[in-house]
Amino acid sequence: MIERPSVRAFAPATVGNVICGFDVFGLALEAPGDEVEVRHRAEPGVVIIAIHGDGGRIPTESDRNVASVAARAVLVECEKQDVGLEVEIWKGLPLAGGMGGSAASSVAAALATDKLVGAGLSKEALLRCALKGEQKPTGSIHPDNVAPALHGGIVMVRPDAPSVAIDLPVPEGVAIALVHPHLELETKAMREALAPDVPLTRAVAQWADCAALVVGLYEEDWDLISRALVDRIAQPARSPFIPGFADVCSAAVEAGAVGAGLSGSGPSMFGFCKNIGTAEVVADAMMRAFGSGGLEAVDRYVSLVDPGGARIVKDTT
Amino acid sequence: MIERPSVRAFAPATVGNVICGFDVFGLALEAPGDEVEVRHRAEPGVVIIAIHGDGGRIPTESDRNVASVAARAVLVECEKQDVGLEVEIWKGLPLAGGMGGSAASSVAAALATDKLVGAGLSKEALLRCALKGEQKPTGSIHPDNVAPALHGGIVMVRPDAPSVAIDLPVPEGVAIALVHPHLELETKAMREALAPDVPLTRAVAQWADCAALVVGLYEEDWDLISRALVDRIAQPARSPFIPGFADVCSAAVEAGAVGAGLSGSGPSMFGFCKNIGTAEVVADAMMRAFGSGGLEAVDRYVSLVDPGGARIVKDTT
Repeated sequence: MIERPSVRAFAPATVGNVICGFDVFGLALEAPGDEVEVRHRAEPGVVIIAIHGDGGRIPTESDRNVASVAARAVLVECEKQDVGLEVEIWKGLPLAGGMGGSAASSVAAALATDKLVGAGLSKEALLRCALKGEQKPTGSIHPDNVAPALHGGIVMVRPDAPSVAIDLPVPEGVAIALVHPHLELETKAMREALAPDVPLTRAVAQWADCAALVVGLYEEDWDLISRALVDRIAQPARSPFIPGFADVCSAAVEAGAVGAGLSGSGPSMFGFCKNIGTAEVVADAMMRAFGSGGLEAVDRYVSLVDPGGARIVKDTT
Repeated sequence: MIERPSVRAFAPATVGNVICGFDVFGLALEAPGDEVEVRHRAEPGVVIIAIHGDGGRIPTESDRNVASVAARAVLVECEKQDVGLEVEIWKGLPLAGGMGGSAASSVAAALATDKLVGAGLSKEALLRCALKGEQKPTGSIHPDNVAPALHGGIVMVRPDAPSVAIDLPVPEGVAIALVHPHLELETKAMREALAPDVPLTRAVAQWADCAALVVGLYEEDWDLISRALVDRIAQPARSPFIPGFADVCSAAVEAGAVGAGLSGSGPSMFGFCKNIGTAEVVADAMMRAFGSGGLEAVDRYVSLVDPGGARIVKDTT
């Protein structure tokens, strides 16, 4: 049997919000991540043929799976709807972990499909397609995971133009300590924990810190970055769902993190660190603090901020 | 008669908010501005001896005048409360015009006093003193005029640390067209026009644009600057008080402004322009649009963004 041409892509874990920029900032880790492989099939339509590492919990119906939705969006974008695709997924990211798992699958699927069918879509078009996938589980578009998963680095998105990601400077050596307690929080429920309105004074302080973080990144001003990494909006509403939240933040900062908080809507938490050595120490401190709070089972990741984002890892076309 | 040593300082007009960054961003013009002169007097206490150009409308009681309050704050800061001062003010800025008039008087008074008494205060301490003056008319601290009046350029302030101004990059040649209709709006009333809460979705879009403006300034990305110069918060509430607001904005942008909107809480409006030549054309277009809206009497200013901020203009010590 001759193996059919296939393309496999990897997309990394991402940290949404980056504390101060709810729904606006995101950053990419080097690892872990999801991989998605796509192959041609004779009949039109996109089908999921296998999902590995999800414990059978991710839907395989092609209109409910983020990867197949994103793959199909690429076919529509390049007007090849009559092409048939098989999709196989290797989940490296936990479900509902706050590490951008659905974004990673969407982005990897979009990138692999683009390559397999020779679409040659722009990054903006790919982002648009991946957003269609990501839209599935949350019901609305939140590009602060999809954009960094595709672009790498630290990015921002304007909600008025969600498919235009703006790359921000990444101070050399920046590393992330990320700790994932085994506690599942649904993104949708975490969104519903947020009040629909925010006090103007709090909003003003928050947009000042969004601006200040950007200045800090351009100037590599660690002190300013540290002062800017404050969230008055989402974390106060979400942190009560995470036992030990405040202690984990304190432990991270005491261990040398420039700032610490929820990764996306949690429950994963991360520390923003000046270098990989500090991130190792910070991750250990966060693990211990979660343990003291009664959440024993945690996964621990330490990674540089990934400069490149999603990439093709296998191509037999 | 021997003239007593005196110091006179100039502080420029400023544009608060800069459209997208309510209470956070501000920028300084080269001119017009206010001048404040201070001289020693034998008895302790700070007294206003003359105010020129205000039509007799600014309070001369020293605890109600922004300049004397700021001057006294400098004396307190450097522990020279027993020094007596005479203060003379030349108003170059209109009252309640949205051009940072009270901030300019406060900053000029603080700077002149610092020089006269040899206090040698840091910029941060001067800003703190000037804020004490500016606090008088509005009742609360809004450093987005005081900070650019002192620092020059384009600055941001974090409301949590109002006396720490962060200088932002100023793209070369940036010029401001500023038009002041003869319509007085009290800052306090304009604040009361604002709702105490803002919808979260609108706040998110606003902090994205605050971050995007900073990126635009660093990258000299005029297109991004233009897209970021949007206000969903203050202008929608305040613009109904200004006849012709929307037409003046449109006229400015059609004439070449990168963005246009209220200067501070208005009624002055400004256009953010790539160069001084464009600013001249934009100012004319804004004048005509105000005229069509029924506000015939307007003042017109065209200026580069001032790189230096407040300065000593006379020193006979």
